[in-house]
Amino acid sequence: MKFRDVRMRGFEKRARLSAVLDWLDAHCASLPGESIPLAESAGRILAEEIVATSNIPAYRRSAMDGYAIAGEETTGASDYSPLTFRVVGESWPGSPFSGKLYSTQAVRIMTGAPVPEGADAVLPAEQASEAGDLVEFTGSVPPGKNVGAIGEDVREGTSVLPAGRRLRPQDVGLLASLGLAVVPVIRRPKVRMLITGNELAAVGQPIGESQIFDSNSPMLHSLIVRDSGELIEQLHLRDDRHLISEALQRPGADVLLVSGGSSVGAEDYAPSLLDELGELDFHGMAIRPASPTGVGRLGSAIVFLLPGNPVSCLCAYDLLAGRTIRQLGGRSPRLPYATREFVLSKKIVSSVGRLDYCRVCIDEERVFPVATSGASILSSTSRADGFVLVPEESEGYAVGTTVSVHLYDLPFDRPL
Amino acid sequence: MKFRDVRMRGFEKRARLSAVLDWLDAHCASLPGESIPLAESAGRILAEEIVATSNIPAYRRSAMDGYAIAGEETTGASDYSPLTFRVVGESWPGSPFSGKLYSTQAVRIMTGAPVPEGADAVLPAEQASEAGDLVEFTGSVPPGKNVGAIGEDVREGTSVLPAGRRLRPQDVGLLASLGLAVVPVIRRPKVRMLITGNELAAVGQPIGESQIFDSNSPMLHSLIVRDSGELIEQLHLRDDRHLISEALQRPGADVLLVSGGSSVGAEDYAPSLLDELGELDFHGMAIRPASPTGVGRLGSAIVFLLPGNPVSCLCAYDLLAGRTIRQLGGRSPRLPYATREFVLSKKIVSSVGRLDYCRVCIDEERVFPVATSGASILSSTSRADGFVLVPEESEGYAVGTTVSVHLYDLPFDRPL
Repeated sequence: MKFRDVRMRGFEKRARLSAVLDWLDAHCASLPGESIPLAESAGRILAEEIVATSNIPAYRRSAMDGYAIAGEETTGASDYSPLTFRVVGESWPGSPFSGKLYSTQAVRIMTGAPVPEGADAVLPAEQASEAGDLVEFTGSVPPGKNVGAIGEDVREGTSVLPAGRRLRPQDVGLLASLGLAVVPVIRRPKVRMLITGNELAAVGQPIGESQIFDSNSPMLHSLIVRDSGELIEQLHLRDDRHLISEALQRPGADVLLVSGGSSVGAEDYAPSLLDELGELDFHGMAIRPASPTGVGRLGSAIVFLLPGNPVSCLCAYDLLAGRTIRQLGGRSPRLPYATREFVLSKKIVSSVGRLDYCRVCIDEERVFPVATSGASILSSTSRADGFVLVPEESEGYAVGTTVSVHLYDLPFDRPL
Repeated sequence: MKFRDVRMRGFEKRARLSAVLDWLDAHCASLPGESIPLAESAGRILAEEIVATSNIPAYRRSAMDGYAIAGEETTGASDYSPLTFRVVGESWPGSPFSGKLYSTQAVRIMTGAPVPEGADAVLPAEQASEAGDLVEFTGSVPPGKNVGAIGEDVREGTSVLPAGRRLRPQDVGLLASLGLAVVPVIRRPKVRMLITGNELAAVGQPIGESQIFDSNSPMLHSLIVRDSGELIEQLHLRDDRHLISEALQRPGADVLLVSGGSSVGAEDYAPSLLDELGELDFHGMAIRPASPTGVGRLGSAIVFLLPGNPVSCLCAYDLLAGRTIRQLGGRSPRLPYATREFVLSKKIVSSVGRLDYCRVCIDEERVFPVATSGASILSSTSRADGFVLVPEESEGYAVGTTVSVHLYDLPFDRPL
């Protein structure tokens, strides 16, 4: 794209979201793998298939507390005609019975302990009573009963988990049972934030009369963490072309997020700088309220020029930057929100030719757009329960239409 | 409950899940609040309502890049009859125009900058062209247009977020815009894990022939993190009554998770110790596969005796311990899984009188129970897509029944 300086003139033509996403998809392969300690691997994405290098269990194990015996020998035992065996030893988890069992012998055994040679079943403790070194059985078990076979959980050589798997807590347990101390996972994308604006003060600092507190960096930081990116640096910069130029060129990031200075104001330096130092592939998007967003590349980093207005910033992050961070990290590009259908109790108005990010509130089983919807009203995104995306083709939705709502809170995390 | 030593004898009577949950609800108030840095507050639960101590914005701000003017004076301006104003200064974010505007004067203004006295509207830059210190307007704006009123986002003295709110990324941004550097949130529950079992080896260590790797502690650790608990200590103990007794009495935890040694085996010391040192309120539950679970109290800690079998451990954690950790942390007691309805393609068999935790796989739009369902087969919980809870009253479900599935993965985190 030939750079056109839009400062104080406005955008000529705005890119459709789908075109930008296609471009991003073409430039966002998963990052390479790295090895991390197993204990930190939950929620990470496997970089390689895991193949079992051993059987689980590696020995025949008891599934009950009771007595290891030859199952066949218990046939017919009942409350009325108990059978008597001799207890010749014990098998504990970690401390097995080392001998072999002969006819009418039993070994006291605990859940998880190795089943000794000569035994093929475990009779539950509840059906036995011991006296001296003898034990009386009031029930019977067939051969194989209550004995876990070698490899019954995982068989050596089989595939345990596929590459690309988001590791569940139980997956971490499963990898532990295979003895894996380190796990190959896709590296987390390294993200650098450049927060620009002379008017911004950091929270906790004194504020001038015409200043405002920087809300985008704590919000973006939270979003990056949610999407499993790694925030490597955040720089707070004045609207100074030289400072911004230097910051853009710092190495080491996979993703650069520039907040503010992305639009058509006289001090919006980021677009022209990106065009000069790298490439500004898109600037101006048919999205409301994130139309001043820019996307491009600088070295190996994907760069997002996010609007300074906080609602626009949230919208541009979610639709573009967050998606890229998830994809680089080997995750699904889907929006990380649960969706649910609701019926509209007030109409949503949109314009053909642009995608609308419309915040909505839930009232019982219906939804309606929030009243205050300006791009600078961040409180609207706290008041809202979620958002509806109105596609470019649509003029909006009438009362009574069923719409799909992206919920800001996960259903199980909403207050009761 | 009078303690009845069930070692090598089995449970006489098993508690219903609902009875245990009622007891837990009565003993699990939210923990007290603590103050943490704003940047770390996303996902945490607000301990107090937040009331705005200032207006946002604190001044009239421009919603556009353009020219601050008296809107009334632009009436009639168009491409065919432009109106000329004199540019008397600039207003930048953080660097406002300090004077006052008089008739036919304009101030060049950027998005977010204070609107000077005498102006009541902002004309977008796209409808203006400057020459020298004059500017020609080819469009008009009514008074108030493109000017954000004081307090339009947040009005001083109003409630911004309620106590109990799980902080979204945008909430963190909103609190930042109010200048909050620290946030009052509910303290995270402190959890101590006691992992017992002579047969257990930690991953990364050499393993004996009759040993197995400890899979429960990495799994439980991941689950505790998921539920926003804080793992303060994990102790790996041999099956030694004295060691377990000492570990149980260590102070500082809100929740104790004891893995293994909870059942009726001869070396299952935890139940009798808990009864002796504190109270063992429940031991034995009508839940499959987590029947050997125990619940009680020791000092101010809630204690969970979790079965050593990994599937039982996962089930007992999710249905009981995880719920408590979430509740102590001020979170919803709901199971932290999305649910979806599916039609069964194979029947689920259960027994009346016990709740069944039945792992299922999804095949297109249908689900079926996993073939291997033993409590020791952890790989079944990795193969499964989720689980169905079959209530105590039910004998199971026939083919074709619609069942509600708790999905192990969030829908947007499943591979495409």
